[in-house]
Amino acid sequence: MNIDFSFENPTRIHFGKTAMQKLPTELQRFGKNILLIYGKNSIKKIGLYDEIIRILKECGKNVVELSGINANPRYTQVLAGAKLVRENNIDLILAVGGGSTIDCAKGISVSAYCEGDPWEKYWVNYEKVNNKIVPVGTVLTMTGTASEMNAGSVITNEEKKLKLGRVFPLGEVAPRFSILNPEFTYTIPKYQMVSGIFDIFSHLMEQYFSGDDDCVSDYLLEGDMLALISAARAALKNPTDYEARSNIMWCATMALNKILSVSKTQDWEVHQIEHQLGAYTDCAHGIGLAIISVPYYKYIYKYGLPRFVRYAKNIWHVSTAGKTDEQIALEGIDCLNNFIVELGIPQRLREVGATEDMLLPIAETTYKCGGYHVLNTEEVLAILKQCY
Amino acid sequence: MNIDFSFENPTRIHFGKTAMQKLPTELQRFGKNILLIYGKNSIKKIGLYDEIIRILKECGKNVVELSGINANPRYTQVLAGAKLVRENNIDLILAVGGGSTIDCAKGISVSAYCEGDPWEKYWVNYEKVNNKIVPVGTVLTMTGTASEMNAGSVITNEEKKLKLGRVFPLGEVAPRFSILNPEFTYTIPKYQMVSGIFDIFSHLMEQYFSGDDDCVSDYLLEGDMLALISAARAALKNPTDYEARSNIMWCATMALNKILSVSKTQDWEVHQIEHQLGAYTDCAHGIGLAIISVPYYKYIYKYGLPRFVRYAKNIWHVSTAGKTDEQIALEGIDCLNNFIVELGIPQRLREVGATEDMLLPIAETTYKCGGYHVLNTEEVLAILKQCY
Repeated sequence: MNIDFSFENPTRIHFGKTAMQKLPTELQRFGKNILLIYGKNSIKKIGLYDEIIRILKECGKNVVELSGINANPRYTQVLAGAKLVRENNIDLILAVGGGSTIDCAKGISVSAYCEGDPWEKYWVNYEKVNNKIVPVGTVLTMTGTASEMNAGSVITNEEKKLKLGRVFPLGEVAPRFSILNPEFTYTIPKYQMVSGIFDIFSHLMEQYFSGDDDCVSDYLLEGDMLALISAARAALKNPTDYEARSNIMWCATMALNKILSVSKTQDWEVHQIEHQLGAYTDCAHGIGLAIISVPYYKYIYKYGLPRFVRYAKNIWHVSTAGKTDEQIALEGIDCLNNFIVELGIPQRLREVGATEDMLLPIAETTYKCGGYHVLNTEEVLAILKQCY
Repeated sequence: MNIDFSFENPTRIHFGKTAMQKLPTELQRFGKNILLIYGKNSIKKIGLYDEIIRILKECGKNVVELSGINANPRYTQVLAGAKLVRENNIDLILAVGGGSTIDCAKGISVSAYCEGDPWEKYWVNYEKVNNKIVPVGTVLTMTGTASEMNAGSVITNEEKKLKLGRVFPLGEVAPRFSILNPEFTYTIPKYQMVSGIFDIFSHLMEQYFSGDDDCVSDYLLEGDMLALISAARAALKNPTDYEARSNIMWCATMALNKILSVSKTQDWEVHQIEHQLGAYTDCAHGIGLAIISVPYYKYIYKYGLPRFVRYAKNIWHVSTAGKTDEQIALEGIDCLNNFIVELGIPQRLREVGATEDMLLPIAETTYKCGGYHVLNTEEVLAILKQCY
């Protein structure tokens, strides 16, 4: 570990079949006025909406609702929520849903009392939040983003065709508590489940594929990858395998609660490309990541060969006898491709709503960060064309 | 992950060569009166004492000192610190040292305003702390216990010949901040360094060798073990290899900040036996653990065979071809023994001050918890005799 760091994560996690029993105790820590935010009707179908309303009423809370949060939450929804917070003097934003709903809640949390244009200040110019931040609590129903235990907030500005992720300071913006019951994820359609699984896997790879020091975080990232592969295979066989779904849920939280990336440089280029793909196509986030990952890593591996060899050996158990490092590394990426096929994820951008004329604007508007190598627009375009 | 859990860890970590620069900001969060506690003279020799006193004065603090904290901190020292806290209306206990000093600080923290006998209430009877808890901050100079990021406090009551560990709730008793600069550990004698390394390794094994479900935590524990083995070997070659020492320091913190043991049953029997060994011999904690571990695991493996096979394969890369599970498991424990030899740790209790007449009282007073199997006194005695 060669890079100095500071770390804190204040989120209190309640995990398991009985986790919801902790909600009343958590609610006691906050005032009476609650903004309940959620997506479409899925939480009503599984009875979760009724359960939460009952608990909120038993705890004597006043509830205001904001529903219909999109898979890629809109900036207009952040503004609508911020208005509700101010008008109702909200004490706690309770987000019930997946990463999109929680990201939106955090956006509302920092925007409600912002003077000026929150989009420009916080997502475009990365300014420090110096206005009042409204606390957020969550009940998670879909795994993937780890938004339940981090301070990230990815928001889509439809008007500006921009999907921007902001990572706020963990101590200030991370949820105060999160309720994680793996059973709530049982009813997610398979396509959403595998999208979430690949999102998690991508988070782990994007933290892993950078740096060349011996660093504890890389060993822990490998551990989380191996746990996720095992759990994903079990969940594909039986989506209501509690052990598998609980492992996927915790793999997701650990993958991006930032404890596994301390002292790491990282390479979030795949996410950057996907964010712009998402802004143009609204495709499922994890599916977009999977499609982009294989051509991206097949292009980038030569700049960080030892790490890709290590990945092939430690994650996919590629045998090394008689092979060059180049062959071992490429075989590792083939194993990644096989895993994507195993998950039943499409291989082509055209299958998820992209059209050829989108590729250049996506490449142009993608933020270029990189790890072992920073791409230029032509290189992004070439990668997009390869998986189009 | 089959066991429900709640988790939070509020400690703010500042890690690296520049970590001390964060101390003034942290100190601003607390009042003027500081109890500075440390061990013997080692922090004076490396200039750390002067640096901290300078920072405390620049921050306008009033400093009261308690020094001479033992390697196995005494309950009498806890009581002396508690008196100083009350007399000086202390706002922050700043512990500078290793796990012993920090454990003592936490003991003082909960005891200062306790009505009644803190030893009986908190260490013997595990009562909930309902008195005022004085905040603790730490500057770490020795790795091993992870006391810098957990709420454990192991205290030795000399009068009663008992060394008891209490794990308080993390949210209440864990340090508010910890400064971790790996360079502070350079001057630790080799014997103390390897003792710390084995203490960490033992923490990981004692969380790992229990349970038979597929659980994310086990994969992460494996990752931390692999990182530690690599770093230990590098540090043995060159004790001032910053990368190695920083990896050891963070492996230690992660090994017992409780994030790697969520949803796990655990087996802390080796620590229980060592605590009583320590009460009788005052031997270095990690050395005692190493001596006990090999005969303990060679006795216990048959009750949890699949986990010991997994350990042999994933940690020590034992080849499996043509071998029975029993042979693979035992070969894994042989690898553990080889690692202890590689670290230069003695193999026999008689080498660390134990005498034959101590074995029975140690076995009798050891708390029996177990994982795959709970030992009785005769079994503990047999294990002690094997490594005597």
